[in-house]
Amino acid sequence: MKTNQKPLILVTNDDGINAPGINALIEVAREFGDVVVVAPQEAQSAMSHAITLKTPLRFSKVQEIENVIYYKTNGTPADCVKLAFNQILERKPDLVLSGINHGTNSSISVIYSGTVSAAIEACIFGLSSIAFSLCDFSHDADFTASKIICRKIIENALKNGIPKDVCLNVNIPKIKIEEIKGIRISRQASGLWQESFVKCVDPYKQNYYWLTGEFVIHEPEAEETDEWALNHNFVSLVPVQVDMTAHHAIENLKKWNL
Amino acid sequence: MKTNQKPLILVTNDDGINAPGINALIEVAREFGDVVVVAPQEAQSAMSHAITLKTPLRFSKVQEIENVIYYKTNGTPADCVKLAFNQILERKPDLVLSGINHGTNSSISVIYSGTVSAAIEACIFGLSSIAFSLCDFSHDADFTASKIICRKIIENALKNGIPKDVCLNVNIPKIKIEEIKGIRISRQASGLWQESFVKCVDPYKQNYYWLTGEFVIHEPEAEETDEWALNHNFVSLVPVQVDMTAHHAIENLKKWNL
Repeated sequence: MKTNQKPLILVTNDDGINAPGINALIEVAREFGDVVVVAPQEAQSAMSHAITLKTPLRFSKVQEIENVIYYKTNGTPADCVKLAFNQILERKPDLVLSGINHGTNSSISVIYSGTVSAAIEACIFGLSSIAFSLCDFSHDADFTASKIICRKIIENALKNGIPKDVCLNVNIPKIKIEEIKGIRISRQASGLWQESFVKCVDPYKQNYYWLTGEFVIHEPEAEETDEWALNHNFVSLVPVQVDMTAHHAIENLKKWNL
Repeated sequence: MKTNQKPLILVTNDDGINAPGINALIEVAREFGDVVVVAPQEAQSAMSHAITLKTPLRFSKVQEIENVIYYKTNGTPADCVKLAFNQILERKPDLVLSGINHGTNSSISVIYSGTVSAAIEACIFGLSSIAFSLCDFSHDADFTASKIICRKIIENALKNGIPKDVCLNVNIPKIKIEEIKGIRISRQASGLWQESFVKCVDPYKQNYYWLTGEFVIHEPEAEETDEWALNHNFVSLVPVQVDMTAHHAIENLKKWNL
C-alpha cells in the first residue's frame, strides 16, 4: 500500500446487496478507507463455495456515495470476490470483509456458508479477509453491537495483519454490547445439522420436500470452541484455513494394501 | 452391519445421474453390495457444499436393476446425501461413494468440488465415504483404469475402515492402468485458480462474463502433495477433514488487543 493511499476495502456478503447486515458493515468499513462493495443482487445463503461456470456472470455499478462504490452481480459470494479482483478493483484490496451475515456461521456451518466462503476465496488469493455473522436470522436484526465488534476486529487486522493463508470467521451473539463478555479466539466446534425434511404435496399429487434441520453440538462443554464462546456471551473468532487435509490420518492410511 | 446383510453402498456425484463416470462407479460398487444411487438429475459441477433452502427438493425412482436402485433429485450433491439418509435409505449405508468425476479435484479444487462435498457431507454424519475423480473433463473419458483403482480402494476401505471424521479424495491420472505407478497417500497441494474472465456483449449491448481460469501450483516440487503424485503418474489419495480451524494461528491471534 502506498503511503498516500487510504486502505482499499472490498465488502461482500451472501444475503445480497440490500440486506441491512452488509450496510452495517459498510458503515464501519468506510471509517477505515475507501470501500468497494461487490455483492450478490439477491440472497445466496447456503451457497457455500459454489462458483458459476454454466451461466454468464454480469455486474453493474449501483451507486457511488462519498468513499463507497456499490456493484451488484448475479454471482455467488465466491464469484463476487473473483469478479472484484479480476474485473472491478483497480488495485489489490488491503482487506476483504464479508457479512454481516443475518444468522450464525459457527461450527460445521462454516462448510455451508456463502459468507465465510467469500472470505476463504480472498484468503486463497493471499489477501486479508474476515467473515462476520450475527446470531440472528431476522431481517430486522439489530447490528448496533455488531458494528462495535467489527470496528475492533478490523482495527486489529489492519494493525497486526492476519496470519498468512488464514482468514477469520467471527460470530457475534444476539445480545447488547454491555452483555458481551469479550472476543474469544476459538476453534470450530464439532457438530452437525440433523435434517428433518418437511414433506408437502403439490396440486399435481407429487411430493416435494423442504430441507430444514436442527443443529446438534457434539462437544457442548469444550471451552475452546466457537459454540461454547457464543453460548457464554462471547464473540467467537476462529482462524480458518484452506488446507482440508486430515494430516493426522496419513500415517494410518499408508498401512493400507494399495 | 448384520452378518446376513450385504454392505449397502450409496453412490452419488455432481455430473448428474446420466454421466458415464457415475455408471462406471456403480459397476464397481455393485460387486461389493447392494447399491442405491441418489444423484442430481442434471450436472451440478462447482456447486461446492451448497444446499437448497429456498426451493423445494424432489426425488423420484428412475429404475431398479438387480442390486442397484436409481433415484434422481433436483438437488445439489450435498442435498443428495441428506435426502438419501433422511428420506430414501432404509438403513445406514456402509459406504458412500461420489464420482467418478469427469475432471480433476486435487489441490484447492477440493473447496469448489461438488463431488468431494458429497463425500464430506457423508463424513459429517460419521459414515465412511470416498470421492473419486478422473483427470479427464471429457464426456467420453475412458474409465477402464479408474474402475480398477476404485475397486482396490473400496476393498481396502471396507476391510480396514476409514479413519474417524475423515473422508478420502482420490484423483486418478488420465493414463492407462499399466502406466499408473501406484496409489500415493498425499496432502492437498497449495495452489489456486487464476481467473481470466472472458468478456462478451449480448445483443442488447450489455457485457457479460464467462468465468474461466488456469490452475497455478505453488509447490510443484513437494513430493508429498496430490499434484506431485498426479504429475508423476500416481493416483493421489488425500484424507480430508471437516475441521477448517487454522490451529497454528490461534496463539498468534491471542496476542491481539481484543
